[in-house]
Amino acid sequence: MFSDLSEFDAWLADRRAATAYDVTVAGLDGLDGWRTEPETGDLVHRTGGFFTVTGIQVETDHREVASWTQPIIVQREVGILGLAVRRVGGVLHCLLQAKMEPGNVNGLQLSPTVQATRSNYRRVHRGHAVPYLEYFLAPRRGRVVFDALQSEQGSWFLGKRNRNMVVEVDEAPPLRDNFCWLSLDQLRELLRRDNVVNMDSRSVLAGLAPPGPAGAAEDAAALHTRAQLLSWFTEAKTRYRLERRVIPLARVRDWTRSPEEIRHDSGEFFRIIGVDVQAGFREVARWSQPMLAPASRGVSAFVARWIRGALHLLVHAQTEAGTGDLVEMSPTVNCAPANYRLLGGDRRPRFLDYVLSVPRERRMVDVIHSEEGGRFYHAENRYLVVLADDDFPVDVPEDFVWMTIDQLTAFVQYGNHVNVSARSILSCLAAGAGRHEERDAGLVGERR
Amino acid sequence: MFSDLSEFDAWLADRRAATAYDVTVAGLDGLDGWRTEPETGDLVHRTGGFFTVTGIQVETDHREVASWTQPIIVQREVGILGLAVRRVGGVLHCLLQAKMEPGNVNGLQLSPTVQATRSNYRRVHRGHAVPYLEYFLAPRRGRVVFDALQSEQGSWFLGKRNRNMVVEVDEAPPLRDNFCWLSLDQLRELLRRDNVVNMDSRSVLAGLAPPGPAGAAEDAAALHTRAQLLSWFTEAKTRYRLERRVIPLARVRDWTRSPEEIRHDSGEFFRIIGVDVQAGFREVARWSQPMLAPASRGVSAFVARWIRGALHLLVHAQTEAGTGDLVEMSPTVNCAPANYRLLGGDRRPRFLDYVLSVPRERRMVDVIHSEEGGRFYHAENRYLVVLADDDFPVDVPEDFVWMTIDQLTAFVQYGNHVNVSARSILSCLAAGAGRHEERDAGLVGERR
Repeated sequence: MFSDLSEFDAWLADRRAATAYDVTVAGLDGLDGWRTEPETGDLVHRTGGFFTVTGIQVETDHREVASWTQPIIVQREVGILGLAVRRVGGVLHCLLQAKMEPGNVNGLQLSPTVQATRSNYRRVHRGHAVPYLEYFLAPRRGRVVFDALQSEQGSWFLGKRNRNMVVEVDEAPPLRDNFCWLSLDQLRELLRRDNVVNMDSRSVLAGLAPPGPAGAAEDAAALHTRAQLLSWFTEAKTRYRLERRVIPLARVRDWTRSPEEIRHDSGEFFRIIGVDVQAGFREVARWSQPMLAPASRGVSAFVARWIRGALHLLVHAQTEAGTGDLVEMSPTVNCAPANYRLLGGDRRPRFLDYVLSVPRERRMVDVIHSEEGGRFYHAENRYLVVLADDDFPVDVPEDFVWMTIDQLTAFVQYGNHVNVSARSILSCLAAGAGRHEERDAGLVGERR
Repeated sequence: MFSDLSEFDAWLADRRAATAYDVTVAGLDGLDGWRTEPETGDLVHRTGGFFTVTGIQVETDHREVASWTQPIIVQREVGILGLAVRRVGGVLHCLLQAKMEPGNVNGLQLSPTVQATRSNYRRVHRGHAVPYLEYFLAPRRGRVVFDALQSEQGSWFLGKRNRNMVVEVDEAPPLRDNFCWLSLDQLRELLRRDNVVNMDSRSVLAGLAPPGPAGAAEDAAALHTRAQLLSWFTEAKTRYRLERRVIPLARVRDWTRSPEEIRHDSGEFFRIIGVDVQAGFREVARWSQPMLAPASRGVSAFVARWIRGALHLLVHAQTEAGTGDLVEMSPTVNCAPANYRLLGGDRRPRFLDYVLSVPRERRMVDVIHSEEGGRFYHAENRYLVVLADDDFPVDVPEDFVWMTIDQLTAFVQYGNHVNVSARSILSCLAAGAGRHEERDAGLVGERR
């Protein structure tokens, strides 16, 4: 454990120095271990495992355009993202790993204790055993605090889910190289820095329930009851249509495959590229794989507002190409603004201009984080929580609803409700933020 | 409202006498409005609407057999099952309809206030307007108490879901023919009688949350916390495999199509038949449709047991051909025993013989109810809750878990957790059954 973060900084710098890795962008043609299916153009691993890049055709009445085709990653197997936690003198500490992933802009970031696909931990690629896996696979050592199947990026993955787990242990296991214990407060501090805590860690941390019992007491301060929020969600699922068909990657329109990459003819959205990786501290020392490289930086932002003395977040019911069940609870804004350059201003995402216009002193969260470095290459999003003033309307369009932080966190427990962007932001908000004491102390703005 | 149930009985008898209907079993060939697709053998409506009977191929490691094909009903559109409730002198009353459905063994049963497919209420078949629909479609009159998408029979439907709603109204709307108000106590009494309250009503009633706040207080008496139950459910979803492919109905193995019907060569499981219907009080006075006719009566049973002074139900994580997400929370036993005649005794469902052997005085629930009379012909199940004594082990196989009634009811609120058989049984158990007072009063058995 670190007595303060400067010790952690020194440790991480040391880990960076000790980690030898090399990531080289390579053409899709001739990518070692991967082949392009002659009939379909799909990118598949020679074992049939890991993941596949294929095409999807989408028709929906819940997006800016009514129908489109695009490449999409299909990964059927459910991995484990597991965080071991331990109370030391009443303070929760988390066991994280400084892990190199090929897509990270800065090589190492903090991953959960275990971050493993089923192939990983079943040794499909003949790697080493996954450290600390015994805390997460049943019969497991330790007490499960949180355990849910959670979705990932709906624009890039088709129905991808990982098992997010938090397991509390009584005894600290022997500490291995590249692992460290951080208190929850230290982690929250690191979450305010760019590109330190990886997406999988953020996703799991969002599942740490706020202290104190949820339920009736928590609903009292909220604008809506839990039953009303569930009804809003059900209503959104029945209001819209989302028809999808997996199609051969070769039949995706407006995307072009070259020996090097697959790109959209406009240059927007993303490219599918290949990378060759060499690494010293991975289960396998050398591998190649396709990756999805976004064309621009995304923005995920919640509008926050004090209502009835409680801080509320404006949640959007969002539909994406790969969404599991029509809509998910998403930040107020969740998009890559550059993708809208070619569309008319009337199709610009609602509240995007607003969240970008809020001055710095009203940004409760403003940080750049990376998306999953095992599939996405240099994928960064700007995460924002902007505090609206009392001029911001409480009445919102039907696709939006106000929830307290505790209410949104409670939905995370059930899986399949809160999307990965919203979970990332929740992890950046201190648990219990938006309660009376904090407002009165002026920590997160105040009512005028 | 009825001062006692004898008044209701007279009213229902009067409704039966006033309802003219005729249901005739007809051959599938030449069924009015329906055709057999020449390429696939699928049964489809000429509009492409309503539902389709097609085939499915299933591979799973979570059933008695590893792979099979079968006919299955596909109905993509989500209907509304809506119950209007109103407090009169603090007592909750429900607005039900005595509704004729062609599959009912006894013609009329009590349906929810609104029981309508999307085609119904959008007038695809040019019927009359659906009464009281304005209480359930947004912007609606009345306050939503419960609103979730719920699955239906996983062995007969592929991923079918209906929107289950309870809406509280302040003013009683004008009462139309065939509708009546029943207090919750009166309904609970009727649920102890065979074939009075239909499946859709039972499904919606299961969503009426038990009185009092759920959460920490409720977990205190329970063997497992909510977090542990969610982890058990997540574990089951990741432990098993369920691969499905929709196939042409003509390619289903071991099933034979004749001009009259489709049946399994063993005579077990179910038949697909046709019916011609004439009715006086339906949206359409005359129609024909395919129906699924089970070959035998099913058994759905919970084992109940006192643990730590609280009544617990033994929940099974069950996989069926049409299950939406690998497993659902199901009664301890949920099957048609006759279907197992041809399999070895080692593949007989666990606890089936036990629940059938429990003597009458330990059956908390023992009643015959009908399944959805709009799709299933003379489909009856026996619903049981049997009280195990203290010899029954608290340690159960990994596919099973003990929950209190309140815990299981809480999962109903979220949709996609509790299957239709379990919801039916929950509706038959009085809210709050299994609390200390009741045990002490000897109402539901007691600890020896």
